[in-house]
Amino acid sequence: MPQPEFLPIQWKSTFLSLLDQRVLPGKKEFLQIQTMEETIVAIREMAVRGAPAIAITGIFGITLGAKKKSGNSNPVDVDFLIKQVFESRPTAVNLSFALKEAKKRVEGVSHWETIAKLWESYALEMMVQDLKANQTLGKNGADLFPKDQNEFHIITHCNTGALATAGHGTALGVIRSLRDQGKKVVVYADETRPFLQGSRLTAFEMMEEGIECYIITDGMSGWLMNHRKIDAVLVGCDRVATNGDTANKIGTYNLAIVAYEHKVPFYVCATKDSFDLKLKTGDEIPIEMRKESEVTQFDFLKNEEGNFLFPEGKTSPIGARALNPSFDITKAKFIKNFITELGCFVPEEISFRLKNV
Amino acid sequence: MPQPEFLPIQWKSTFLSLLDQRVLPGKKEFLQIQTMEETIVAIREMAVRGAPAIAITGIFGITLGAKKKSGNSNPVDVDFLIKQVFESRPTAVNLSFALKEAKKRVEGVSHWETIAKLWESYALEMMVQDLKANQTLGKNGADLFPKDQNEFHIITHCNTGALATAGHGTALGVIRSLRDQGKKVVVYADETRPFLQGSRLTAFEMMEEGIECYIITDGMSGWLMNHRKIDAVLVGCDRVATNGDTANKIGTYNLAIVAYEHKVPFYVCATKDSFDLKLKTGDEIPIEMRKESEVTQFDFLKNEEGNFLFPEGKTSPIGARALNPSFDITKAKFIKNFITELGCFVPEEISFRLKNV
Repeated sequence: MPQPEFLPIQWKSTFLSLLDQRVLPGKKEFLQIQTMEETIVAIREMAVRGAPAIAITGIFGITLGAKKKSGNSNPVDVDFLIKQVFESRPTAVNLSFALKEAKKRVEGVSHWETIAKLWESYALEMMVQDLKANQTLGKNGADLFPKDQNEFHIITHCNTGALATAGHGTALGVIRSLRDQGKKVVVYADETRPFLQGSRLTAFEMMEEGIECYIITDGMSGWLMNHRKIDAVLVGCDRVATNGDTANKIGTYNLAIVAYEHKVPFYVCATKDSFDLKLKTGDEIPIEMRKESEVTQFDFLKNEEGNFLFPEGKTSPIGARALNPSFDITKAKFIKNFITELGCFVPEEISFRLKNV
Repeated sequence: MPQPEFLPIQWKSTFLSLLDQRVLPGKKEFLQIQTMEETIVAIREMAVRGAPAIAITGIFGITLGAKKKSGNSNPVDVDFLIKQVFESRPTAVNLSFALKEAKKRVEGVSHWETIAKLWESYALEMMVQDLKANQTLGKNGADLFPKDQNEFHIITHCNTGALATAGHGTALGVIRSLRDQGKKVVVYADETRPFLQGSRLTAFEMMEEGIECYIITDGMSGWLMNHRKIDAVLVGCDRVATNGDTANKIGTYNLAIVAYEHKVPFYVCATKDSFDLKLKTGDEIPIEMRKESEVTQFDFLKNEEGNFLFPEGKTSPIGARALNPSFDITKAKFIKNFITELGCFVPEEISFRLKNV
């Protein structure tokens, strides 16, 4: 019996209700976004994160902008609206793509009221499609697990859940789908240093839904695989090359190697937009290097006054250096299957499966 | 040319100078320990940590106690002194062993002055022996590295340095020895969650000695091995079974698997007391489970007022569960060599090499 979904983005016709991820996991607060300007702030300040979630929020943002206007529009005004939202997070590829599509959909339309309606329905369509893709992906993934087994122990990395999508999630979507099929699932969430998406966000989502979850540090997976029967590792991804090499949050690659050594199946959960057939191998995927202070000083965690919780010198010596690659590349050989809304397949099948999509 | 050693324990005849590890890495303060009571507090409150360092400090503690007394002693008073220091950290095996030896050394001795002198010389002897063993170990390890290469890139885990020993250290001892041979060494220190010994202590020791050091999170080693030429992984250990299975700080096992996959040699640095020939395999080594709050809440890090730096709900949801094994077992097959003061050898040689020691 499916339980009610946990939905971080909800459209209420006159406003957008958005779970504020900046105060998670301590507080569960929904922002009531009434204007385009408020949407821009919410995206820029990361009240919402995750590529699909940002794109959907952005289109609701221009919808709110269009709703405030009346009478006839002109292309310059439409462009200006789109540009403002685009600039809230200019590197988010999904947002940029969605805004281009939004522009196309209102070409030649002259009334703001009609534009608002077209954008509103586009945003709702995106939301429905993303949710549907994740639900199909989740079901496809759940089907990989033995039907006659009632309890599964699964390790995850980073946050791949409802918080990053329109709902359900990718890797966490598979876990939700297993739960919806009446299975008991026990989740072990890698805390995912440096940013702690696992302990802050994944643990939060699992607790919201009453799924048993234990946080582990990123170095504990090998110990865990020797001490408990682990059925699978499920991760999401940022980009997959044609040969199956997969970019995902730093730490994924180590986890994949450890799983391989223990013969624990390692699954990458991805919707079709994550596959980039322009890239032959993972060597072509650029890796973003982030600030050293995320590692040395946990500088993304602040108190109510906006000061760092860990003053300099507490978690590392003052002046200590660090490396901080945001992603790593998991080689295809460690990946047992890709789990997608198009079905499950091995790395060798990618070009065939994605060719005509 | 050997540079001056960094010595956390220094005996000054009338007092013990002890680097206060509780305020590291932010402050470098030496405690002037004048009495046995102060020694007990320093051990109990972890101003000093690491089994050899604790044992040496304890014997200096009873020395200070005996120095305060005069005239004739009696066995009951001697036992009471020893018992008090023993109870400061009752699970520390090295301390317990050293105190037994200290008792033996003063059997039948009736003057407190003589007792104090005997204990003082025993403590100095322990200090010299530990330092010498580490220096020999360090040299033996350095000899494994190619003579015609001038720069080495090394990954370490946890803290295995002067801070845990009488000086020099085990894995960090090898790094110091390489540096003393005029080699350039670049160290990548796993931060070592949950307790952050790598970022707090190893980075501190390396900076003290001007050795180039970068902190990485525990999930970055695979990425690093693909992006830079890593010459070796060097770790310490807590206990080695006869077949070579090695207990060390949690995260060591994942690092060993990742090194093996990348054909990077993985070396375990250990003095002879770490080998336990009573144990056949690592399965017989019990693993201590520690508090969940070290993982969920970084509860070992406090501010000046003694409050947690990360309030509940900041790094994980309130009520979140975690697993916190303090050690893991690295299977012998992943270990290329043990580096000891007796020489370097493969796991299969352990019983032969350690038999008559």
